[in-house]
Amino acid sequence: MKRIDLNCDMGESFGAYTIGMDDEVIKYITSANVACGFHAGDPLVLDKTVKLAVEHNVAVGAHPGYPDLQGFGRRNMDCTLEEIRKYVVYQIGAIQAFCAIHGTKLRHVKPHGSLYNTAAENEGVARAIAEAIVSVDSELIYVALASAKEKVMSKIARDVGLKVVYEAFPDRAYTPEGTLLSRRLPGAVVRDARDVAERALMMAKEGKVIAVDGTPIDLDIQTLCVHGDTPGAVELVRAIREELEADGMVVKPTGEL
Amino acid sequence: MKRIDLNCDMGESFGAYTIGMDDEVIKYITSANVACGFHAGDPLVLDKTVKLAVEHNVAVGAHPGYPDLQGFGRRNMDCTLEEIRKYVVYQIGAIQAFCAIHGTKLRHVKPHGSLYNTAAENEGVARAIAEAIVSVDSELIYVALASAKEKVMSKIARDVGLKVVYEAFPDRAYTPEGTLLSRRLPGAVVRDARDVAERALMMAKEGKVIAVDGTPIDLDIQTLCVHGDTPGAVELVRAIREELEADGMVVKPTGEL
Amino acid sequence: MKRIDLNCDMGESFGAYTIGMDDEVIKYITSANVACGFHAGDPLVLDKTVKLAVEHNVAVGAHPGYPDLQGFGRRNMDCTLEEIRKYVVYQIGAIQAFCAIHGTKLRHVKPHGSLYNTAAENEGVARAIAEAIVSVDSELIYVALASAKEKVMSKIARDVGLKVVYEAFPDRAYTPEGTLLSRRLPGAVVRDARDVAERALMMAKEGKVIAVDGTPIDLDIQTLCVHGDTPGAVELVRAIREELEADGMVVKPTGEL
Amino acid sequence: MKRIDLNCDMGESFGAYTIGMDDEVIKYITSANVACGFHAGDPLVLDKTVKLAVEHNVAVGAHPGYPDLQGFGRRNMDCTLEEIRKYVVYQIGAIQAFCAIHGTKLRHVKPHGSLYNTAAENEGVARAIAEAIVSVDSELIYVALASAKEKVMSKIARDVGLKVVYEAFPDRAYTPEGTLLSRRLPGAVVRDARDVAERALMMAKEGKVIAVDGTPIDLDIQTLCVHGDTPGAVELVRAIREELEADGMVVKPTGEL
Repeated sequence: MKRIDLNCDMGESFGAYTIGMDDEVIKYITSANVACGFHAGDPLVLDKTVKLAVEHNVAVGAHPGYPDLQGFGRRNMDCTLEEIRKYVVYQIGAIQAFCAIHGTKLRHVKPHGSLYNTAAENEGVARAIAEAIVSVDSELIYVALASAKEKVMSKIARDVGLKVVYEAFPDRAYTPEGTLLSRRLPGAVVRDARDVAERALMMAKEGKVIAVDGTPIDLDIQTLCVHGDTPGAVELVRAIREELEADGMVVKPTGEL
Repeated sequence: MKRIDLNCDMGESFGAYTIGMDDEVIKYITSANVACGFHAGDPLVLDKTVKLAVEHNVAVGAHPGYPDLQGFGRRNMDCTLEEIRKYVVYQIGAIQAFCAIHGTKLRHVKPHGSLYNTAAENEGVARAIAEAIVSVDSELIYVALASAKEKVMSKIARDVGLKVVYEAFPDRAYTPEGTLLSRRLPGAVVRDARDVAERALMMAKEGKVIAVDGTPIDLDIQTLCVHGDTPGAVELVRAIREELEADGMVVKPTGEL
Repeated sequence: MKRIDLNCDMGESFGAYTIGMDDEVIKYITSANVACGFHAGDPLVLDKTVKLAVEHNVAVGAHPGYPDLQGFGRRNMDCTLEEIRKYVVYQIGAIQAFCAIHGTKLRHVKPHGSLYNTAAENEGVARAIAEAIVSVDSELIYVALASAKEKVMSKIARDVGLKVVYEAFPDRAYTPEGTLLSRRLPGAVVRDARDVAERALMMAKEGKVIAVDGTPIDLDIQTLCVHGDTPGAVELVRAIREELEADGMVVKPTGEL
Repeated sequence: MKRIDLNCDMGESFGAYTIGMDDEVIKYITSANVACGFHAGDPLVLDKTVKLAVEHNVAVGAHPGYPDLQGFGRRNMDCTLEEIRKYVVYQIGAIQAFCAIHGTKLRHVKPHGSLYNTAAENEGVARAIAEAIVSVDSELIYVALASAKEKVMSKIARDVGLKVVYEAFPDRAYTPEGTLLSRRLPGAVVRDARDVAERALMMAKEGKVIAVDGTPIDLDIQTLCVHGDTPGAVELVRAIREELEADGMVVKPTGEL
């Protein structure tokens, strides 16, 4: 029986500001990547989000980002590797305390925004994040971008003793090389709910995605990343979940796979 | 054989900004209250400070404050009790991660600045902090202001199952009622090194302080708070340590008492 | 012919976070109180908001607040009067630059949230704000809470040479003493659109409001404060504007009155 | 009679944190580049620094940086040109208000840290800053890095109608190409007071600097950048000032040249 995890970024509200429909999307996912207060989130939001995840049996993960609330962590910052390591340690610690008070354990770490993108391209940054995670808790699972070419992350994982799972994006187009088509190019985002749900099923069940030119690509993935910012996005998550379960897939957090 | 702990605020630098002579004062104290990034400190400073404490066998404590870097946590903020609870949880978590990577365990929590002062006067705030601490780790020791009149904190401690130790300030004058003389009044700060060291010894050995009017006051204390911001302050700490040890006192972290 | 100004808080979005329906509410108001980056707003939002106001012939005002983004400026901070003065100067300067690049002039200043509330109760704070405003530009109009008892602000205004206009809240209940009924009490907010529009007209045309106990109260007001955070709120603003104009009132910025 | 300006970064303290010996260095310089609260500085520091400059007849300039207090504006941030424009407008406005209350006028703008370095290499960023400056006040003087190869900044200045002055660094080594030797290379910083003062005089009087390989390079400069962070640095500034005046140079702000 095939298994898959559905992960979604959550806890991105801040003070009086709200982002995301966490109360809705939580019903359909199995892993929550929770903002830790650097690029989004604050202590009250962290508390509420971890509590929400626990109530829905959703695995709690840290979603650390650059210290740039104004840019929502989406702007690259030329941080040293030492800074990145300590920023990740700090953010993991913060969310671990909320896991403790809600009787759960932090399960995974997935970098946010520009930190995620930089890690996907820059081996030094990827290794710094990996080292930070392992230094705090070597049981933590690192969520990385699946890619047909991916070799770097698995090498780092072996080197530092890190557990890695790979994720794909059902609503994003892929190049024939097995990487994400840049958002700046037309067709980068798949919007039709039917299409997205079918792509999710193919990714989860067959480990495959059809690239923009029709090439079938093998992707070794354990989790699918979904979004929950708009009512439409929540509907999409629900469609994906239903499609997967209708086909007999087991949808569970990666830590339990 | 009488024992006493010497605690000092540390890790208050931020980015390019330096406060405190941590490298010097660490040699003479037994407990470090480390800023956690809200009113002072940042992830690099936290890392360096926890490492420094571990190297000197100094017990690591959290020094949580209001989220007000510009005011250094010294301005009261009208936060809700819920906000205070979550701010304390967050900051404890952040420093716990640095304890984890340096192979130690967080030992105590002492609120900073205006949060400390408010807790000393406002039972609701004191209780919120206590609840936050216990919710994360009931082994954590809470450092509170010793006072002849003190009843509130010990009641809260019993209610929520919190371990409390009381501190006194050798370099501060006390009122006949056993509270700190306001800094706005003349003579509030004792500056002579000899005097301060002798007061420290009387506090530690006899549990006594002589108030500004000559009244002897009983204070039940387990730790003395010292300062390390200036070369002169460091000398004072050294003098206190030497005075205590010359008299045969055992100077150790409270957790080991 | 009677005149009135309609003012609304705007520009409260921050980075990826959106608050307010500025594009809609701008059509019905005559003065915008624009957040300046301390409790809300950022340089991009300031730019967009000032531009929007200019395009709609809406007078631009500064809406300075405490430096507390996480609390949206709604928590009191125990700042010194010197801090308050300089915070207000800074925020006025920031928005003046955006007025300059969009070919307009800053017209008024209205403190935000907790700073507004504190100024209404604390003469020292009110005077500090007044001094800050006059020190930058004595032509700036200060928007203060109208109150039957109000004497302090007009005295301060005379003392420091400040122009003051008074505002009332059509959607808030008033006590028989002519002050706002606390939000914590039932009935503090009037929600029916018809009622609010009628109250607005009575305030603007007759300088009167009926208190919760039926007492008619005289209020000397030049501007009405309206809200634009929700679709419903925008409808309310539209209803107020229509009611006022249907009755022959001239709705204009206070500076032009 | 030859003239030269001496500029220095100032107002970099923040809250309880102090950087720089502004009270000392102000005596020897003619232009102050004042931090505006993004990478350093706060409203109280801005106020104090502008006041100090006015008292010493020192021209006040804005020293805008990236919004990164934790990194002191020294880390590159991948901001859009629109963000850079608005960040510069905002910071200019903030300091202009302090100029207004102290009866002076903002005279120049010099980007700080990573924003300065990026502008020196990236035409788009340099142009964005230039546009921002001119949009607020076309009388403002932009301080740019002098370089034998420099063509870009003068072209931008012509395009947007900006006044530019060029600066050199007496305590930095230059390459034979007339650019600054990277700080990562040995000998990048000249430390001997005698040498620095002589280099300053040659720069100011002859518009020349001797590169690391002995090549004389022509630099068209109107201002020299000096530092004032340490007692030693202040002594260096004094030595430069004395050397220049001993040789008959007139040391004045660029705006008065």
